[in-house]
Amino acid sequence: MKIGFLGLGIMGVHMANHLIDAGHDISTAIHRSPAHETLLAKGLDVLASPKAVAEAAETVITMVSDTPDVEDVLFRPDGVAAGLTTGMTLIDMSSISPLDTKAFAARIAELGCDYLDAPVSGGDIGARDGTLTIMVGGPEAAFARALPLLEVMGKTITHIGGNGDGQTAKVANQIIVALTVQAVSEALVFASKAGADVNAVRQALMGGFAGSRVLDIHGKRMIERSFEPGFRISLHQKDLNIALSGARELGVALPGTACAQQLLSGCVAQGGADWDTSAMIRTLEALADHAIG
Amino acid sequence: MKIGFLGLGIMGVHMANHLIDAGHDISTAIHRSPAHETLLAKGLDVLASPKAVAEAAETVITMVSDTPDVEDVLFRPDGVAAGLTTGMTLIDMSSISPLDTKAFAARIAELGCDYLDAPVSGGDIGARDGTLTIMVGGPEAAFARALPLLEVMGKTITHIGGNGDGQTAKVANQIIVALTVQAVSEALVFASKAGADVNAVRQALMGGFAGSRVLDIHGKRMIERSFEPGFRISLHQKDLNIALSGARELGVALPGTACAQQLLSGCVAQGGADWDTSAMIRTLEALADHAIG
Repeated sequence: MKIGFLGLGIMGVHMANHLIDAGHDISTAIHRSPAHETLLAKGLDVLASPKAVAEAAETVITMVSDTPDVEDVLFRPDGVAAGLTTGMTLIDMSSISPLDTKAFAARIAELGCDYLDAPVSGGDIGARDGTLTIMVGGPEAAFARALPLLEVMGKTITHIGGNGDGQTAKVANQIIVALTVQAVSEALVFASKAGADVNAVRQALMGGFAGSRVLDIHGKRMIERSFEPGFRISLHQKDLNIALSGARELGVALPGTACAQQLLSGCVAQGGADWDTSAMIRTLEALADHAIG
Repeated sequence: MKIGFLGLGIMGVHMANHLIDAGHDISTAIHRSPAHETLLAKGLDVLASPKAVAEAAETVITMVSDTPDVEDVLFRPDGVAAGLTTGMTLIDMSSISPLDTKAFAARIAELGCDYLDAPVSGGDIGARDGTLTIMVGGPEAAFARALPLLEVMGKTITHIGGNGDGQTAKVANQIIVALTVQAVSEALVFASKAGADVNAVRQALMGGFAGSRVLDIHGKRMIERSFEPGFRISLHQKDLNIALSGARELGVALPGTACAQQLLSGCVAQGGADWDTSAMIRTLEALADHAIG
């Protein structure tokens, strides 16, 4: 299939590579980042604008940083929307606002095209290995048509509901991860300061109601002081901003999410924007003047 | 073995029953609650005081409500300490302050006896089924001697470290459960208010980094509006009080634990002291004027 892929960053390069390896023809637009020689060698076509990419493609995938970036690549004068023809499908795999996503989808639908919001989790490793979790919102028929493409890039692919619901699921995911990282951080700092062996505590808790993927993976990182990303704090903060601004618009109070966001800001203040999100424990350690490891 | 068992409440009745069924002789002290006819029929011996119970026993187990209750049953004039003889083991299975536990253990050690703090998780169902998780602090040799008794009452039994470390692990457990319940609550209220199917969101998130026992079990309860305990909010509040007062003494900031505690207070204000702790979502729902189910 002829696929336009806009956003060949850390994640996008791997995702586009899987699509090329699966036999698809990929085009992209001129972009500031030069890092896709591998893709050029495999026949990546570089066109003048997102509009030109859309004109040459049957399906367009966007994988950019934040809500304004999606709006820009879609709706600027030489954007994707200007190049779409009726019946095409646009898949936005960025992690952006669910509320703005509904508006974007409505504008694309007016052009006679389908919009799928299909944010991913799993990070650059998941992108490289083709094991991303993909949460999809949009029309059932469009989802069914897109599924073979999504299966090239991800492993667990769920159709959550209508447009925006994929992004909503991603926001829910990021809220839970942030607060569970905080849960494990507070528990381990308390346990360490009380004089207990944090490794023994973590092991004892793994099998019970406190058990989670975060206690397993992030808890281990905290104890081993291994804060290489993984998932960067700056990106988690972006996602929590989406949660908190969405919550304001919806009239929902998220006191824990707001608190977790502040603890991550405490890491940024320590120079940790690029630390793994499990480094949230460092803010609590700084407050307690005590490191667990 | 001759075992003194003090605290035949909702949990203790089941635990003592398992010990009797395993062939041990159990004595207890006169107690306000009358609910142990089954145990009396099986030969439970009721003596005049905790001191008398300790005098008649080889090992004493306490399973009472809170730190002051343990202090009272151990150290009042006719308390357990007054009846202990050198070489005996005291096992406190209540969930109480780890810091006070260290002081209690030191006082018991002065009498030439071993102290084990062995708080449990798993609730009345775990107690009834003999499947409790037991986190133990205290001397290795005393742990080894007590293990056969603990195995009659529990399934996953971990020796965490020295005295207090069992209680510290329990506190860590309760911190994590509280904050993970809040994580799932915030995520589901956000998702529901954004118009997504909370069941689909929960399912999609189960397999990824947001996956936890709490998302599985408590998340299901939230969606099904099934708030029968389970684990009562009043008990979880007691445990979080232990965490927060311990944190003050230790000089540790637990902002998330404090926030979760306040959300549980919001349930109590709604008449929910006896709701399951997963009902924490009801406070967020009240704040958002929106129920997810």
